[in-house]
Amino acid sequence: MTETDSERAGSGRQPVHHSPDSGLSPGSGLLDLRRVGAHPDFWYPVALSRKVRTGRAVATAFAGERIALYRTESGTVHALEDRCAHRQVPLSMGVVEGETLRCCYHAWAYRGDGRISQIPYLSKGDGRPPRGVRGYPVREAYGLVFVFPGDPEKAALTALPELPAFGSPAYKTMSFSRTVHCHYSFMHENLLDMNHQFLHRGVVGKLHPQLLDSRTQARSVEASYLFKHVGGKRNRGAELLATEGTGRRGSADVLTIRTDYPYQTLDLVPQNAERPAFRLWAAYVPEDAEQRTCHAYGLLMIAKPRVPGALHLAWPLIRRFTERVFAEDRMAVEAEQRAWEEQGEDRNHEVFPLILDVRKVLRANGVPLVPSGGTARCGSAPGA
Amino acid sequence: MTETDSERAGSGRQPVHHSPDSGLSPGSGLLDLRRVGAHPDFWYPVALSRKVRTGRAVATAFAGERIALYRTESGTVHALEDRCAHRQVPLSMGVVEGETLRCCYHAWAYRGDGRISQIPYLSKGDGRPPRGVRGYPVREAYGLVFVFPGDPEKAALTALPELPAFGSPAYKTMSFSRTVHCHYSFMHENLLDMNHQFLHRGVVGKLHPQLLDSRTQARSVEASYLFKHVGGKRNRGAELLATEGTGRRGSADVLTIRTDYPYQTLDLVPQNAERPAFRLWAAYVPEDAEQRTCHAYGLLMIAKPRVPGALHLAWPLIRRFTERVFAEDRMAVEAEQRAWEEQGEDRNHEVFPLILDVRKVLRANGVPLVPSGGTARCGSAPGA
Amino acid sequence: MTETDSERAGSGRQPVHHSPDSGLSPGSGLLDLRRVGAHPDFWYPVALSRKVRTGRAVATAFAGERIALYRTESGTVHALEDRCAHRQVPLSMGVVEGETLRCCYHAWAYRGDGRISQIPYLSKGDGRPPRGVRGYPVREAYGLVFVFPGDPEKAALTALPELPAFGSPAYKTMSFSRTVHCHYSFMHENLLDMNHQFLHRGVVGKLHPQLLDSRTQARSVEASYLFKHVGGKRNRGAELLATEGTGRRGSADVLTIRTDYPYQTLDLVPQNAERPAFRLWAAYVPEDAEQRTCHAYGLLMIAKPRVPGALHLAWPLIRRFTERVFAEDRMAVEAEQRAWEEQGEDRNHEVFPLILDVRKVLRANGVPLVPSGGTARCGSAPGA
Repeated sequence: MTETDSERAGSGRQPVHHSPDSGLSPGSGLLDLRRVGAHPDFWYPVALSRKVRTGRAVATAFAGERIALYRTESGTVHALEDRCAHRQVPLSMGVVEGETLRCCYHAWAYRGDGRISQIPYLSKGDGRPPRGVRGYPVREAYGLVFVFPGDPEKAALTALPELPAFGSPAYKTMSFSRTVHCHYSFMHENLLDMNHQFLHRGVVGKLHPQLLDSRTQARSVEASYLFKHVGGKRNRGAELLATEGTGRRGSADVLTIRTDYPYQTLDLVPQNAERPAFRLWAAYVPEDAEQRTCHAYGLLMIAKPRVPGALHLAWPLIRRFTERVFAEDRMAVEAEQRAWEEQGEDRNHEVFPLILDVRKVLRANGVPLVPSGGTARCGSAPGA
Repeated sequence: MTETDSERAGSGRQPVHHSPDSGLSPGSGLLDLRRVGAHPDFWYPVALSRKVRTGRAVATAFAGERIALYRTESGTVHALEDRCAHRQVPLSMGVVEGETLRCCYHAWAYRGDGRISQIPYLSKGDGRPPRGVRGYPVREAYGLVFVFPGDPEKAALTALPELPAFGSPAYKTMSFSRTVHCHYSFMHENLLDMNHQFLHRGVVGKLHPQLLDSRTQARSVEASYLFKHVGGKRNRGAELLATEGTGRRGSADVLTIRTDYPYQTLDLVPQNAERPAFRLWAAYVPEDAEQRTCHAYGLLMIAKPRVPGALHLAWPLIRRFTERVFAEDRMAVEAEQRAWEEQGEDRNHEVFPLILDVRKVLRANGVPLVPSGGTARCGSAPGA
Repeated sequence: MTETDSERAGSGRQPVHHSPDSGLSPGSGLLDLRRVGAHPDFWYPVALSRKVRTGRAVATAFAGERIALYRTESGTVHALEDRCAHRQVPLSMGVVEGETLRCCYHAWAYRGDGRISQIPYLSKGDGRPPRGVRGYPVREAYGLVFVFPGDPEKAALTALPELPAFGSPAYKTMSFSRTVHCHYSFMHENLLDMNHQFLHRGVVGKLHPQLLDSRTQARSVEASYLFKHVGGKRNRGAELLATEGTGRRGSADVLTIRTDYPYQTLDLVPQNAERPAFRLWAAYVPEDAEQRTCHAYGLLMIAKPRVPGALHLAWPLIRRFTERVFAEDRMAVEAEQRAWEEQGEDRNHEVFPLILDVRKVLRANGVPLVPSGGTARCGSAPGA
């Protein structure tokens, strides 16, 4: 893949490339970003590993494709189309038997690849049964179950995201899993535009974010900000999260946010510290066919302080702080989604070049959503 | 009506007539069964008699036609279109006065046949009022209020279902009345395909249903199964229901299920018994215009045991058992309906000849549903 | 404006002009009244003044246009389009700073006229920001916040309704503010047709309303009724409301109801009294774009009795009575709206000339609603 670097400092940005509403106003010929689907040829988390217990099936989804996950007696997780081939009843309502999953209704049994292994009552004279349902490639990593919803032949060639801090003894990970009623693109824009700290003024105090530099490539946008605390009171959880592991307490931090399609990361390095105080990795996985709802999976890797046990004590405060920040962000992005639905199109009037860049990246790397009713199918979803 | 018998034993079925998805796949030219409406030229239960108290009106419906039932002071039940001719306010919100029903809003009064008997404030110079609203033929039997939603001229020629066990001193009846969010056809298919006992494994144990024979006619499908209990624990209510009245306790029963359009029955005869331990009669009455919801009315006629009072003691256990079985069936058929709505068409892949037969019968005896918005009207519904 | 008087007494009505369903049956060529929007070139209440506290913003709406109201530190109320020009997040979620309103998300600040006063982080090289959002003319009177949703140039020329009793020492005002799920026209018809007292029989007893006379003009319909109490028990609150301030206790009252587009009033004068026992002023403000829901604002001005403090004691009883009457009316008009939505058109069969008249007035003075999806816009709504 050829990547076009257009590195530029905060002061050297080229606004000529960014008309305020480039491609977003009706009639521009460009697809509305909120009608661009997440490209299926990536590994997407669809459940926390611990939620898929041995011998149990659970329902999940990617972009309107219902998926049944089940963990066999031997501990392997499989992902099947969540419709019995017989009468379309969800297989996630079924019963795990050894390595197979049996539909709850007429007891048809499926193997992990989606093939039917048994129909208990089938007679010779009966109709020819279907061969099975679609099976998805599955991988478990970082406490998450990933599936590959796109072309299965590409699964083996496509890497899982790399999270070196996850396994490091210097970091401890807090997991998040939540449904947000918005198009995934609003989540990327939210995190990349740090001018939205006003939204969190109640917990982070008054911050002055200054864009240090940004870099846009074909599949990524990265931005670094200097955060200066200029007033107001910072919540104790915020304080702990930003400094605990590094021991540095300053009035300035460097935040680096990166959309690396389709994932997003945020690293915070306190002033004079040598390593990040925390690193966040996030994926926003569309749930419904129209992709108006996404499921946010997050891994917050927090640097362990030198004092053993200190992070353990700080943990509930940090979690409370992140819950609050997430709730505020959700309120904003869901309001954006509601406005889009009422207005029927994207009327955003963006002025921040960085955000215009990430929109381009998300549009260029996604797939068009076919407008339709409840039967919408999108992405490259070959049959089983 | 000429009925084409195609009697056949379980072993001699002719699968050549049944391609797995005959008529159900898109492009087959056949109407999707879930878009076939119940034929209105039959008597349909629309309420339990005891719910229509003297001097009161209640709301019910058939296939999107709202119906007001009211019981006059003299005890007769009438059924009217549930819209005042004046301003369309439901007459079921009205007040019974003697033999008439008065709209709650401006006090227009109606006779039992739907004709207006009085408009309290009408002056000579006012506009000519409408003549009334539609009245439906009504009959009460078996503790149910039946209406005839179709061509009223056919009502007198159409028989109510015959339930000899209902009045018999040898049986006692338990009534059911519940809304199920599915097309009525899913209910017929559910009961006729006894391979679904896997769904009830928690209460009936492990059963091996063996199809003994089946018979399909123009308006009916009948199937007999031998049920062998091959393991697991059978719930006490199930035990009582299957044996109480006959005194026989065996490991095998013969179940005969029959769709006799538009009704359905199930008789269970325990091994070596001379009469059924119970007989179930059921009707699935569409509620909404699109017939995606039905109201199931059931009469479960249970053989009285020789010991007086024994059935009285068993009653709550039997009821609890039937409630649980019904809840499990509802979970399955409602999942089928949801899948149909999401997929926009019937993607079932049926392999059981019996079920392919009952689909044909339901399709051939029903009426096409006109796809439409909230104003759908279906069936032969002549004005008042 | 040329007004065509067609004054007539109750006995001299000319039904020839009123076929029972003139213009309401499909195919008549006339627009369905329930598809006629309220004309935006009037002052409409959109909030109780006391709900818009100093330094706070609240959300309201007119016919699908979302409006943010905020009261500045100096006490002035402003009304802005409730969408930040940046990312469409509601400004009503924002923060009041002095005389400006700041969006909660990226802190863009707006003046009371909708112009942007500050974008905190905008750099020289960034895209050109929008100029602002629409601002609405606002007036406060009678404890209500009024906006002018139509052509702003007409605002100064259009008078607020005149309510002399509001400021009079002889009357005390009870305010109402409630959402009703119906087209505003059902509210006008409800109040004007006093034959609907049957609906309130539980609280007003048995009334015989006799139409004394009515007068229809281009923009108004007025009707006077003589109310004779002919039986049943009248609720204590009703009793107090009708007589308290006048000291007259009789079995007959004169009610005068007037639709004076777009408002409505009702005056009750007890037999032999010289002034109204109460005067009601009401406005029914469409909330959604399809105008299937309205917000009813009411001012009930009740004559103060000679005994000081007596009204204070009667107040809770009067409020309870009016709550009940309102609940009954709401039940009826919402049933009408549901019928309209199910039937997809107005199938009313009106026979009362007065109501046919008010329909004409509402149709002639309103604006057509463009049928559409969730993005409907109606009325004359010029940009900011």
